[in-house]
Amino acid sequence: QGTRDHPPAQAALRERLLSAVVSCFKRHGAAAIDTPALELRETLIGKYGEGTKLIYELQDQGGELLALRYDLTVPFARYLAMNKITNMKRYHVAKVYRRDNPATTRGRYREFYQCDFDIAGQFDPMIPDAECLKIVHEILSDLQLGDFVIKVNHRQILNGVFAICGVPESKFITACSTLDKLDKVPWEEVRSEMVGEKGLSPEAADRIGEYVQLHGGLELIERLLQDPKLSQNKLAKEGLGDVKLLFEYLTLFGITGKISFDLSLARGLDYYTGVIFEAVLLQQEKEHVEEPVSVGSVAGGGRYDGLVGMFDPKGRKVPCVGVSIGIERIFSILEQRLEASGEKLRTTETQVLVATPQKHLLAARLKLISELWGAGIKAEMLYKKDPKLLKQLQYCENTGIPLAAIVGEQELADGVVKLRDIATREEVRM
Amino acid sequence: QGTRDHPPAQAALRERLLSAVVSCFKRHGAAAIDTPALELRETLIGKYGEGTKLIYELQDQGGELLALRYDLTVPFARYLAMNKITNMKRYHVAKVYRRDNPATTRGRYREFYQCDFDIAGQFDPMIPDAECLKIVHEILSDLQLGDFVIKVNHRQILNGVFAICGVPESKFITACSTLDKLDKVPWEEVRSEMVGEKGLSPEAADRIGEYVQLHGGLELIERLLQDPKLSQNKLAKEGLGDVKLLFEYLTLFGITGKISFDLSLARGLDYYTGVIFEAVLLQQEKEHVEEPVSVGSVAGGGRYDGLVGMFDPKGRKVPCVGVSIGIERIFSILEQRLEASGEKLRTTETQVLVATPQKHLLAARLKLISELWGAGIKAEMLYKKDPKLLKQLQYCENTGIPLAAIVGEQELADGVVKLRDIATREEVRM
Repeated sequence: QGTRDHPPAQAALRERLLSAVVSCFKRHGAAAIDTPALELRETLIGKYGEGTKLIYELQDQGGELLALRYDLTVPFARYLAMNKITNMKRYHVAKVYRRDNPATTRGRYREFYQCDFDIAGQFDPMIPDAECLKIVHEILSDLQLGDFVIKVNHRQILNGVFAICGVPESKFITACSTLDKLDKVPWEEVRSEMVGEKGLSPEAADRIGEYVQLHGGLELIERLLQDPKLSQNKLAKEGLGDVKLLFEYLTLFGITGKISFDLSLARGLDYYTGVIFEAVLLQQEKEHVEEPVSVGSVAGGGRYDGLVGMFDPKGRKVPCVGVSIGIERIFSILEQRLEASGEKLRTTETQVLVATPQKHLLAARLKLISELWGAGIKAEMLYKKDPKLLKQLQYCENTGIPLAAIVGEQELADGVVKLRDIATREEVRM
Repeated sequence: QGTRDHPPAQAALRERLLSAVVSCFKRHGAAAIDTPALELRETLIGKYGEGTKLIYELQDQGGELLALRYDLTVPFARYLAMNKITNMKRYHVAKVYRRDNPATTRGRYREFYQCDFDIAGQFDPMIPDAECLKIVHEILSDLQLGDFVIKVNHRQILNGVFAICGVPESKFITACSTLDKLDKVPWEEVRSEMVGEKGLSPEAADRIGEYVQLHGGLELIERLLQDPKLSQNKLAKEGLGDVKLLFEYLTLFGITGKISFDLSLARGLDYYTGVIFEAVLLQQEKEHVEEPVSVGSVAGGGRYDGLVGMFDPKGRKVPCVGVSIGIERIFSILEQRLEASGEKLRTTETQVLVATPQKHLLAARLKLISELWGAGIKAEMLYKKDPKLLKQLQYCENTGIPLAAIVGEQELADGVVKLRDIATREEVRM
């Protein structure tokens, strides 16, 4: 349940998509790493907030207690700490596992690919953070997914908002995970969960509501820096300073047109400590709707300066920022689009079919195809001793093989091969 | 335990290796598929002989009982049956999981990659089987791993041998799994396990011993076809006929020089029904040893005509033959070789570092790098506001970046960029 096989057409589309994402990561100078799909259970516990209950655990068959990785970020942090690496730019494309309620039509699965790019190291503020946003912008533009917006917020600003609204510090994380639902449900519902389940006072919730419904650009940042209460809060002020600097760099990258500073963005994971962001695709409704409708998040990430330290015996921190591309949703969109277009993706790369027009010529086919493979040519033949020529040519048409190399008795006698262009039916002897 | 992280240098080498294997599979016209790492536990149970106890099971957290895949063959058969596919040539590169005793120096892990190529469908005998052997031959030759031999046997010949030696049919599979150890331990040990643990009579074991220590080429096949006892056994006779035809095709492919018909080859898995094969690398010992020493299996496979039917509600069979490349052992060899050569593999593909020679030029770097990325150029910069030029050039040397694009105050004023070749130190303004 919640997993799927990828038949060849899907696998080919996925390969195309992943290769677009990976080339962007490589364009930004990232190295690949790979980590096991299995992690020690203790590595994963307590890193994902309410997600922890979705972790797949392995049966205790003796030895270590294991679990399947939930994301690629925690394994990356564990890897850095274990190897005492303090400086690294890496990408990782791999499957992760979550015992979530699958919603497969919206591209939500229990086993799914993540494509992560992260920058670890002590650097000047906001330069790596800006590059992560640039990467999201490049990938979503390259894939031509239509209009999108990248929402940006900062954990310290949120914490500052909670603080000045009277939320005790012990409830910051849980308040964040409630707030995280604001992109799916209206504020009234979020407010009632904050008051009901999370035990915030109604007044605190109302004060939070005034802030978290704000979104805008540089002018909003400037306005909040002047906000009498928020500007008095050290965390919020630092966060606003970061976001202001970030916008400066994003302006130099020329991508602020797609960036929205959005105070409702919270991100559910415990480990974020600074800038957080999430990209959503916008879909123009057909009639009378002024604001574009969001069709869901396709990328997200943020800064997590404390995570590596949790795996280091001495608690040494390595600041990190990263982005994860939500490949499954993008894949669903591309799949629907391909289906609508009627275009048929080839699932193999075969260049030529080796064919014979008469019986008793299997040996000739085997010899010729062996020669072609030896020359690096992608070649197939039918696995029949005496296939009909029509069948062989139909196989080319069905699978998109552009050429047939035909050896008949006459060709054998003349020491030639007849090369046929399947589409034009032109033939040359060579 | 038994798993490993791949740091960038290893990941880069692995990418190179996998891409060589995949291009061979594509050259033979295979399409890619992907299946989940999780399978229903019942799908895997009873398919792997003594391997079944090495299956990783997931904890029962409600819902289906799951396990991690043990190989890619059973999931492929399950996929064919589920989708009623009777004809397919596919490859699959993915990780599989076995709770084995790890022997990491010899490339044996609990999580490891398999690279599988399989041909499913009802075809004329031995044509697909011959192609699988051709693929092994091509891959091992391409990778220049040194001398190798591909051992070939046939399950029906083995069953025939067991039958004429007086082994009851119910013990064929267990006798096979004992025989499978003959490449690691001497015949005496195998014999004593057959008699002791497996309950064969000493006379039966001795008779088996006479056959299974034979190996050779076409002349051995001909000799066994004349063997008074073996030729009377229907299974053995069919098997020998298959192997004879196979050798005919392999002769046309020109690869019989590396093929050995070897009656000791058994392969441990339950599901094989016909031709089986295994490739081993040969290593010349330095002194006084006449026969080359085997350093272990690097590829294996065979025909499994009954497996798909086990997953079909009506038991409909789809004949299959396939090969699995033991990428981990090959990887270990290439890794050791790379280490010995002292060659340093680049872990990134960055073409140019955007650098500045004075302070207060971050904006210029951000603008230029953004332009380069936009043009598809792989570019990096240091994440510092004011890095020293020397540091920037050292970064190029350490990571193998061939060019630096330098923008200083003068270049900015002149509207040019200074392009520096790191190796030659030549500079051009452009």
